[in-house]
Amino acid sequence: MPVLECVPNISEGRDLAAIRRIADAVAATPGVRLLDVHSDATHHRSVFTIIGTAAALRAAVLALFEATLAVVDLAAHHGAHPRIGAVDVVPFVPLAGATMAEAIAAARETAAGVAERFGVPVFLYERAATRPERHALQDVRRGQFEGLHAKLRRPEWQPDYGPPVPHPRLGAVAIGARDFLVAYNINLATARLDVATRIARVVRESSGGLPCVKAMGLALPDRGIVQVSMNLTDIEQTSLATVFEVVSREAARDDVDVVESEVVGLVPGRALVEAAARHLRLPRFGADRVLDTHLGS
Amino acid sequence: MPVLECVPNISEGRDLAAIRRIADAVAATPGVRLLDVHSDATHHRSVFTIIGTAAALRAAVLALFEATLAVVDLAAHHGAHPRIGAVDVVPFVPLAGATMAEAIAAARETAAGVAERFGVPVFLYERAATRPERHALQDVRRGQFEGLHAKLRRPEWQPDYGPPVPHPRLGAVAIGARDFLVAYNINLATARLDVATRIARVVRESSGGLPCVKAMGLALPDRGIVQVSMNLTDIEQTSLATVFEVVSREAARDDVDVVESEVVGLVPGRALVEAAARHLRLPRFGADRVLDTHLGS
Repeated sequence: MPVLECVPNISEGRDLAAIRRIADAVAATPGVRLLDVHSDATHHRSVFTIIGTAAALRAAVLALFEATLAVVDLAAHHGAHPRIGAVDVVPFVPLAGATMAEAIAAARETAAGVAERFGVPVFLYERAATRPERHALQDVRRGQFEGLHAKLRRPEWQPDYGPPVPHPRLGAVAIGARDFLVAYNINLATARLDVATRIARVVRESSGGLPCVKAMGLALPDRGIVQVSMNLTDIEQTSLATVFEVVSREAARDDVDVVESEVVGLVPGRALVEAAARHLRLPRFGADRVLDTHLGS
Repeated sequence: MPVLECVPNISEGRDLAAIRRIADAVAATPGVRLLDVHSDATHHRSVFTIIGTAAALRAAVLALFEATLAVVDLAAHHGAHPRIGAVDVVPFVPLAGATMAEAIAAARETAAGVAERFGVPVFLYERAATRPERHALQDVRRGQFEGLHAKLRRPEWQPDYGPPVPHPRLGAVAIGARDFLVAYNINLATARLDVATRIARVVRESSGGLPCVKAMGLALPDRGIVQVSMNLTDIEQTSLATVFEVVSREAARDDVDVVESEVVGLVPGRALVEAAARHLRLPRFGADRVLDTHLGS
């Protein structure tokens, strides 16, 4: 049975009891494994990493919506991370033995189920998108929750499923299919947001930086520091080790140190190979030397 | 079907055409995959990493013996690494889905086949050993090829299979079963063997060092440097990152730098987690955050 990964992001990163309740609802769904819950108070956001078959994941996402509806009210939500929904984004990712077509089918079936049961508008995005202008998540999310009423009145932003009005507590949701990505953040020992913003511009592909890197600068006011928050969409093209090196070097130009970095959710073992090889000074060492690479399929 | 790893070590690390011929014989065996061949001219030794079922690996080991017999004459062999045979040691290791009992059975069946077909004395070692004094490979190998005639005359060193005299070209062989281990070497920028020997003593468990670490100091005269050559028998107990740190620190006490390190064969992905986390300054990051950990079984 092909296994997919599903990585719902919800707009609640502070109320740990609420997050626990949602996690329990997911974990209680037969046939899925909840591998990780990553909550960030500044982003005001939690990321769940779940694996299972398409049918089991669909049931887990419905359970996640039900629990989120009970405890999260997006109308009262303010955080550092852009969002359109209490359950903001639900990507499906094919793992070993699964195809992108299966991930797309899972996204669409889940979208239909969510719209029917909760009356929430759903946009299909990235590989599951029905129109090219909905491929990029940032376009789907542009205007955020606050701009959703106006956006849903435009003919080109009619939802793929559900009504053309925001749900009062849930907002809307983007459900899609994509390749594996690594959500990777680097925290910098400065309160200067301009440093993080400049470095984000240097590293992100869209402004001529590193291939397959999306990046934005964020303030973490509770800690008095800033963060370069990134998605690495192809770690064969640009590895965590390369990103860490470039961000460290750019920060040094402003006399700023790296405090730490952070991976959200899970990474494939091959994502760690280059960083480990640099740390251990292992020349000529690649993913083919990692046993897991050969046992997967 | 349970999959085992088999890691034959042969006493030929210089004649690349001969090594290629042996590798081709192994790779041509139906049902096995030859994942890596690591040759070391100073050790005068090559390590083959093969995976497959017990029956397929037995056939691959017989093919390896046949090819080695054609091209390697142990009587003419001198290298930095201790050895008793042209095919020196053949460990079987259980991988995901296999048990140690299956690895032990594979070792014994292979040992019987090798002795019958090539007339070579075989000692079963470690988990496949038939007597406690044959558990440790260094005891089986003590006296090396040159001491084999005398050793095989002692009642307590009668081989488990094959005749009680060395094969003129092949010597003897140790065939066994063991848990996964990581063969890990660190090269130091000095010609002083005493530095490598002292550090080996500091890190190895048997002299009060790090848990589950075996170590010896070797000279690499071709390169004018020395090596701390190690086996890490439980990377949960002592990781590559810890070993690298301790060896680097000890070398610094003698004003010696680490040139590089080296992994022989393959490592499980979890072996790289700690080193990668240190390089990327990832706090609170463990093997549970690596996707492969959860997909294996």
